[in-house]
Amino acid sequence: MNSKNIDDWIRKKQERRLKSTPDTLFAGIKSGDKTALSAGITLIESQLSEHRVLANALIQKCLPLSGDSIRIGITGVPGVGKSTFIEHFGGLFSKEDGGVAVLAVDPSSAVSRGSILGDKTRMNDLAVNPNVFIRPSPAGDTLGGVAQKTRESIILCEAAGHKTILVETVGVGQSEVMVKSMVDFFLLLMLSGAGDELQGIKKGIMEMADALVITKADGDNVQKAKLAAREYKNALHLFPPNPNEWIPRVFTCSALNGENMDEAMETINSFENHVKLNGSFEKSRREQDKKWLTETLKELILSGFFADAELVEKLKRNEQRVIDGEISSFQAAEELYQAYQNGRRI
Amino acid sequence: MNSKNIDDWIRKKQERRLKSTPDTLFAGIKSGDKTALSAGITLIESQLSEHRVLANALIQKCLPLSGDSIRIGITGVPGVGKSTFIEHFGGLFSKEDGGVAVLAVDPSSAVSRGSILGDKTRMNDLAVNPNVFIRPSPAGDTLGGVAQKTRESIILCEAAGHKTILVETVGVGQSEVMVKSMVDFFLLLMLSGAGDELQGIKKGIMEMADALVITKADGDNVQKAKLAAREYKNALHLFPPNPNEWIPRVFTCSALNGENMDEAMETINSFENHVKLNGSFEKSRREQDKKWLTETLKELILSGFFADAELVEKLKRNEQRVIDGEISSFQAAEELYQAYQNGRRI
Repeated sequence: MNSKNIDDWIRKKQERRLKSTPDTLFAGIKSGDKTALSAGITLIESQLSEHRVLANALIQKCLPLSGDSIRIGITGVPGVGKSTFIEHFGGLFSKEDGGVAVLAVDPSSAVSRGSILGDKTRMNDLAVNPNVFIRPSPAGDTLGGVAQKTRESIILCEAAGHKTILVETVGVGQSEVMVKSMVDFFLLLMLSGAGDELQGIKKGIMEMADALVITKADGDNVQKAKLAAREYKNALHLFPPNPNEWIPRVFTCSALNGENMDEAMETINSFENHVKLNGSFEKSRREQDKKWLTETLKELILSGFFADAELVEKLKRNEQRVIDGEISSFQAAEELYQAYQNGRRI
Repeated sequence: MNSKNIDDWIRKKQERRLKSTPDTLFAGIKSGDKTALSAGITLIESQLSEHRVLANALIQKCLPLSGDSIRIGITGVPGVGKSTFIEHFGGLFSKEDGGVAVLAVDPSSAVSRGSILGDKTRMNDLAVNPNVFIRPSPAGDTLGGVAQKTRESIILCEAAGHKTILVETVGVGQSEVMVKSMVDFFLLLMLSGAGDELQGIKKGIMEMADALVITKADGDNVQKAKLAAREYKNALHLFPPNPNEWIPRVFTCSALNGENMDEAMETINSFENHVKLNGSFEKSRREQDKKWLTETLKELILSGFFADAELVEKLKRNEQRVIDGEISSFQAAEELYQAYQNGRRI
């Protein structure tokens, strides 16, 4: 880049920032501009209260364009080969109308502030595919907060025209429940021959799965994987039937060789036909919506406190008083709540 | 029991129910009555808003009597032998002044409504020990909610005179962070020779540990456990030093034979001396308090909505409208928030 180009680039960047109102972001998202979609999600993830107001306005605009997609949750313990699987799986869907968005929910991000999908180099092909939008996991204080933001991000991705949404998470418990409550289809990746303890953790997750895929079925591992698939198929018979009457499928695949990836694709299509025909697709979406109503409401109510600069200032003062041992956290909270209540009554 | 005894028992039970005001509960808790302590924690765990008011009053009463204890978090994957360890470890502490309270935080309870510690038969001796109070994990909608209730339960247990509080959790990520933020000492149980993947999950948790105990160091396993202990000791050198200047200890134990359990006990005592001498005990408690201030405040603010019968009625109506597809969850939440705001302004 010569200096004129750099000047141009800086000017454009500044203009873009200035123009980032909900209206301009929405126009960009609608037209399929990936930068606008990214900026929109950044706005959603922001902790600043003024951003929250803009984010809510943006979501309201995107809502009428959302919903027309298949939302797929993908989970599995670290090492199961999620990235390789998503690389292939996402590649297949990217050829379809609307392309793919890949999002992540990561329970550990509250600790390490790290994120899965952070290392985009693990998904070389997807990262440069023009029909694919990839977004790493947002950092957040609580898993619930992270999940709520992911759910709002799905709405933006759908408004951008993506017809397939992949939501990745790591297979360690609580996060799966969150992801399950925002997707239509839940896919569990498993290793053959993993220890019993690991399987113990996953029993609850297995019950939630619409498909169980034994990964790394290549080389010496093929027979072991097939045996594991048969065992899981038997085990699934012990679970109560799904309300949507879908019978979970079990199969092996090798993302390395790209083997059986078409079966994964075909399974999703069969599922979509099945649940759309018997009405459970729409029913399940509305039930999820109902569940999320309380979360959205809670966030709105709390924003009434946290958007008030004076109250936030008082919160910081009370935090210091707790640190100094002047009052307990319960007394400090009670005091702040009284101030909030009094403010409301004026 | 003959019929007179049964009548007596029923009458006493009814009397107890009628008497369960914060005052009578507090009197019972203070005198070391386990039934009162149980009833107090049940009150804290209740989702009913009228119970919430009583629970807050009870906590306020207990607060001045709380704090004088050592709070110990214990974690490890399923199968590591937590129950057997706690059975022995709790037994040792039960002989000390004040006795032990054992509480549990279980991230999976939001899914299965099951709970760790639910099966008290796993802790035969502790369950019948008069100096021990055992309480299974509360069921809750969110991990944050469960953790907040556990923290309040700690205050009640301390007011009841317990000088050692054990908080058990399963080793799968998010829940450890919660437990770490409410205990003084964090003990991680590990198996020797568990797979690399399992260890991957636990890296973040290892950083939080004040002691790392390799369990099941008995029979053929002794050498393997000792080797693992040496390796972990080396690995811990790579972590940044703790602000409290405590150097995490690593050792093996066999809860089966009761071997090395005294080392666990001695470690806790050394730790307590160390952090109380250099002032970091008090400092860390206050910092935890500060962190929990926001959580307590959030709960108070939200109770302003959820204690209002009319608003809760409206919430239920809007949930039905979402199920019927009349409005989106975002619109429903916005409408409820407006109603809440209008109510405040009157």
